[in-house]
Amino acid sequence: MSKLRVGIINITGYAGAELARLLAKHPMVQICAVTGRSAVGQKLAEVFPHLSLLDLTITSDIDDADLVFSAMPHKASAEAILPLLDRGMRIVDVSADFRLKDPAKYTEWYAFSHPAPELLEEAVYGLPELYRSKIPGARLVANPGCYPTGAILALAPAIREGLIGSDIIIDSKSGVSGAGRTLSLPTHYSEAADNVRAYSLEGHRHLPEIVQELQALALDSVPSVTFVPHVVPMARGILTTCYAHLRTDGLPKVKQIVELYREFYKKEPFVRITSSPPETKQTWGSNFCLIYPTIDARTGRLIVISCLDNLVKGAAGQAVQNMNIMYGFPETTGLEALPLYP
Amino acid sequence: MSKLRVGIINITGYAGAELARLLAKHPMVQICAVTGRSAVGQKLAEVFPHLSLLDLTITSDIDDADLVFSAMPHKASAEAILPLLDRGMRIVDVSADFRLKDPAKYTEWYAFSHPAPELLEEAVYGLPELYRSKIPGARLVANPGCYPTGAILALAPAIREGLIGSDIIIDSKSGVSGAGRTLSLPTHYSEAADNVRAYSLEGHRHLPEIVQELQALALDSVPSVTFVPHVVPMARGILTTCYAHLRTDGLPKVKQIVELYREFYKKEPFVRITSSPPETKQTWGSNFCLIYPTIDARTGRLIVISCLDNLVKGAAGQAVQNMNIMYGFPETTGLEALPLYP
Amino acid sequence: MSKLRVGIINITGYAGAELARLLAKHPMVQICAVTGRSAVGQKLAEVFPHLSLLDLTITSDIDDADLVFSAMPHKASAEAILPLLDRGMRIVDVSADFRLKDPAKYTEWYAFSHPAPELLEEAVYGLPELYRSKIPGARLVANPGCYPTGAILALAPAIREGLIGSDIIIDSKSGVSGAGRTLSLPTHYSEAADNVRAYSLEGHRHLPEIVQELQALALDSVPSVTFVPHVVPMARGILTTCYAHLRTDGLPKVKQIVELYREFYKKEPFVRITSSPPETKQTWGSNFCLIYPTIDARTGRLIVISCLDNLVKGAAGQAVQNMNIMYGFPETTGLEALPLYP
Amino acid sequence: MSKLRVGIINITGYAGAELARLLAKHPMVQICAVTGRSAVGQKLAEVFPHLSLLDLTITSDIDDADLVFSAMPHKASAEAILPLLDRGMRIVDVSADFRLKDPAKYTEWYAFSHPAPELLEEAVYGLPELYRSKIPGARLVANPGCYPTGAILALAPAIREGLIGSDIIIDSKSGVSGAGRTLSLPTHYSEAADNVRAYSLEGHRHLPEIVQELQALALDSVPSVTFVPHVVPMARGILTTCYAHLRTDGLPKVKQIVELYREFYKKEPFVRITSSPPETKQTWGSNFCLIYPTIDARTGRLIVISCLDNLVKGAAGQAVQNMNIMYGFPETTGLEALPLYP
Repeated sequence: MSKLRVGIINITGYAGAELARLLAKHPMVQICAVTGRSAVGQKLAEVFPHLSLLDLTITSDIDDADLVFSAMPHKASAEAILPLLDRGMRIVDVSADFRLKDPAKYTEWYAFSHPAPELLEEAVYGLPELYRSKIPGARLVANPGCYPTGAILALAPAIREGLIGSDIIIDSKSGVSGAGRTLSLPTHYSEAADNVRAYSLEGHRHLPEIVQELQALALDSVPSVTFVPHVVPMARGILTTCYAHLRTDGLPKVKQIVELYREFYKKEPFVRITSSPPETKQTWGSNFCLIYPTIDARTGRLIVISCLDNLVKGAAGQAVQNMNIMYGFPETTGLEALPLYP
Repeated sequence: MSKLRVGIINITGYAGAELARLLAKHPMVQICAVTGRSAVGQKLAEVFPHLSLLDLTITSDIDDADLVFSAMPHKASAEAILPLLDRGMRIVDVSADFRLKDPAKYTEWYAFSHPAPELLEEAVYGLPELYRSKIPGARLVANPGCYPTGAILALAPAIREGLIGSDIIIDSKSGVSGAGRTLSLPTHYSEAADNVRAYSLEGHRHLPEIVQELQALALDSVPSVTFVPHVVPMARGILTTCYAHLRTDGLPKVKQIVELYREFYKKEPFVRITSSPPETKQTWGSNFCLIYPTIDARTGRLIVISCLDNLVKGAAGQAVQNMNIMYGFPETTGLEALPLYP
Repeated sequence: MSKLRVGIINITGYAGAELARLLAKHPMVQICAVTGRSAVGQKLAEVFPHLSLLDLTITSDIDDADLVFSAMPHKASAEAILPLLDRGMRIVDVSADFRLKDPAKYTEWYAFSHPAPELLEEAVYGLPELYRSKIPGARLVANPGCYPTGAILALAPAIREGLIGSDIIIDSKSGVSGAGRTLSLPTHYSEAADNVRAYSLEGHRHLPEIVQELQALALDSVPSVTFVPHVVPMARGILTTCYAHLRTDGLPKVKQIVELYREFYKKEPFVRITSSPPETKQTWGSNFCLIYPTIDARTGRLIVISCLDNLVKGAAGQAVQNMNIMYGFPETTGLEALPLYP
Repeated sequence: MSKLRVGIINITGYAGAELARLLAKHPMVQICAVTGRSAVGQKLAEVFPHLSLLDLTITSDIDDADLVFSAMPHKASAEAILPLLDRGMRIVDVSADFRLKDPAKYTEWYAFSHPAPELLEEAVYGLPELYRSKIPGARLVANPGCYPTGAILALAPAIREGLIGSDIIIDSKSGVSGAGRTLSLPTHYSEAADNVRAYSLEGHRHLPEIVQELQALALDSVPSVTFVPHVVPMARGILTTCYAHLRTDGLPKVKQIVELYREFYKKEPFVRITSSPPETKQTWGSNFCLIYPTIDARTGRLIVISCLDNLVKGAAGQAVQNMNIMYGFPETTGLEALPLYP
């Protein structure tokens, strides 16, 4: 069988490089083209020595491919993708450009007028645990953001079962690679080391994505979500701590909650309900999302903690998972690596 | 004027060593004795090369001193302190043994029967920002815990002014030194590096301390507090993110909240209300607590972030601050160092 | 074809856990038994959540296996291995117990009298790049130490070609996991973070191993080696900087040296001669050893830098590589993962 | 007594900010002006929140001051300094612009033609341990580089006493702040974390400075120095490991070497000869240089390890020390802080 020919747009960022790392060892895939505006003409090995086994030269465009992953920043991603869609290529967009269903949200949160609002309905939100059945036929998969993946997976079972009220606090702690490979003072080593900071307190762009999906899960109420992301001094990983009130009629026990979570995710190859609080390091380099639900008995609050590797399940790994589903490959193909520990 | 003669119990832990670091340069103080069970007879410089300018030998007991700082673990601290109090020494207890007013809480949270419940009322909770007037005459000052210092200072103005409802979430991110110098697997470098984890989800011992003080500040309601501490890979620092609903009658603007916070702490030498989100690194090695209140306009929630160095304002520095107040020294004496950055 | 049945002795250390991580995904292998004195009866997943896909219970002994990896500390390893050898199992010993050919060195450097000196000649030093032809038939492979792997691979071409004099300085910088999973003050997070230190200045146990192998490579002179290991604040990785004088008769150019190194290692799947100075992070989680030879033209010195992941090419990965050679599997099987970056 | 009025050129870099941190608490000094090209008109507190107690506005030039510290990059520093010297201000130049005596070295190593070669003789190399007597009268003090400070102090006693041969290897491990506050890919957090790398293998600019000073100390031979700097993942600190052959006639014992070192530095307030290998963390935030000489008995090599904080003794602290000497202040004034540990 001939291999699937895939391209990667903007391989020079961390999500792009991680896609290359994963796809390089995928048995059903051949990377046929990689682009990167700042490095056209360079060998991939010059930019990323860890990828030097891949003999690829960075180009400006993708001429031909079966599937293209876009790891461009928002807005630029949509612009790059649209002509490829027209030419019949299928797309997994790692950017935010097709995640939100309401075009007005792009104006509000991303400060641009969406160039193809008619595609927003068609695009499938590529969280396999919620939308698996829609992915095989999709032309365009919008790969979820790193924070939304952790937050939505943490809360989905509780919301869909109507266990919690609408007041939801999501407090996330992310490694620095989430800010990308573009230089900035807050990601300068001497500034980021030995440091924790909150940011985007006025509203992070992942909030509308989280709200959209939690709302879709909710039976009745409209979730009132506060989301505060923090940066902690490590390269990879996101730990998200979610807080919500359990509805008081028939307060469930922890055991029941855990059972409900296990049931919800029982067929999922990459979600594990853990029996002790998970740590981001237990996901390092892997596509796992670890989830730990518990109850604060003093206050009747549900606390759910999730951990994942922001570059894998939070970006490139999930994108490969989506590709596997799109093409009917076994879903874990190329994603079998266990977490690196310590 | 002859110098104040101070002793340090259990100098071999991080809080004890930090006390020595600060007191070594305090112009009105002479360290006369330092104890440490595991290192009796050793020179301090052998245990802590960074303190080698201090020519002190570690002993098992303190014979004589004007003031003694105890940096012992809970329970052992009370046992060590009581005979010294009887002999007329004044005490700043860095442990938890005299922080809680209700003796039953020690049975519930610390699993021991308090050996001197009659002293719990007398002991002054040594958070100068709230109890400054009671400290000068105190025989026994209970130095607040590291998490409570950050959480209480973050919430005090809002609670005392009746701005928030009783539902309070406190999500803290601490550096690893908060776990002390005693070896453990979670604080083993290879385990703690590149890692974030939550712990004590069943209830951390600092919760009753936080609740006690928030309740004392509250005008009417009884706070319902969920507190989840996390460990992040850095040696020092705590960032605490607090969430609470603003009471809806007459929702204040951010500007008013900030003004209220500035007014509340306007005379405080070590509390600063910042105009952008603070970072733990901005407090490294200093006695400052930085506080940033803001409003999540979408949900009407107050968010307050505080940062401090867990070993300074969260332990040894605050203990020195208490000593300064006890003896009428200028409150910032020996605590003038600016944060080390980067 | 039935799978090779392998056991791991002392899986509870980092080398043992890394063996399990690698072997879990090896297509020709089945892990049939894992031992760990401190955790007998526990599920592997309880000790190492990152290995929870492996359904294994830790036992005290290995009853039956085709091949056993020992990740025990020295001395205990030999004791555990000898009875298994007698029962016909083949062994890859990750400890130092069969690396040195001279039994007297064990008394001198490891403070024990070797229990089976007659096996020291038989045991094959498992550095495939130098001893590949001896490995297929071996009953007992002594897996090289982490520092020796980096130092010997860095110097082998220059020594074998007679390019350098006998004065050799080896300055290594290791991540903290090299010190193992056993708790100690120097590997306590707060002590090891933000810190660099040299250790074993009186002579590190890997020195006799390095000297033995360099001497075997030398055409004439006896190498006079100074080796100083340092610990730097990262979990994984060793960078080794080697210094030696080039023999002055016919001083080669850098280009020639690089050519010689490339030629020397041209068939090696895991050694890469890099065209710019390598970084430990470029090997994270992989079995690669990156080598960069250059010349300090001002002094006529050869400088060679090598990088590897101490737990992979420096321990478990090399052990799997040895197993692959022993059984005629393609040498890279189970070791194909690219480095994780960043 | 009126305070000394000092200015800081280029406060927006790490050395400049560290100067401000130290000078802010210096009892005999008033900071009268701070410049920074990229931040003219901004309050210092906006750029550096940790310095918010200093009420200073960043300007483009210094109109008037008794003493000016220049923390500009090389070349720009000389250009900024020369007019100030003409106007009678005294200068401590933290850049390299007046460290080398031979103007040709600036062309060779820094790629510019020195604008005031006639001042190179007059400028005093501000390493107080070697040139203290020349500093009080100096108009222009060239503050040593961070690597040279550690390397020269480590080797000075051995060289001046003629103990070692001319073959010298200097292997340094520096924290990331040594690369400054200017953004670059190698100092991007995700790249620098969990990583060690060597750089400037073709010759680092601190080499001619080291060679100049070692040569001035040498009795006869011309030192043949190889210097390789490495970057390790920590914000501050340099550990330097020096290797040299002891001259064989009358090989000294370690005890004698240590005695000689102690004697050499016995009056130095900031140099300490340690009895165990020092660690960079033991100098964090302080002006100390810790030195540990020992002998590799197997090879007859002297090994000397030094540790310092690159931003303090390696830059700003040493500059303040020079100022203290220039003005007859007690040499440790403003530099009394003990290292921050852990």
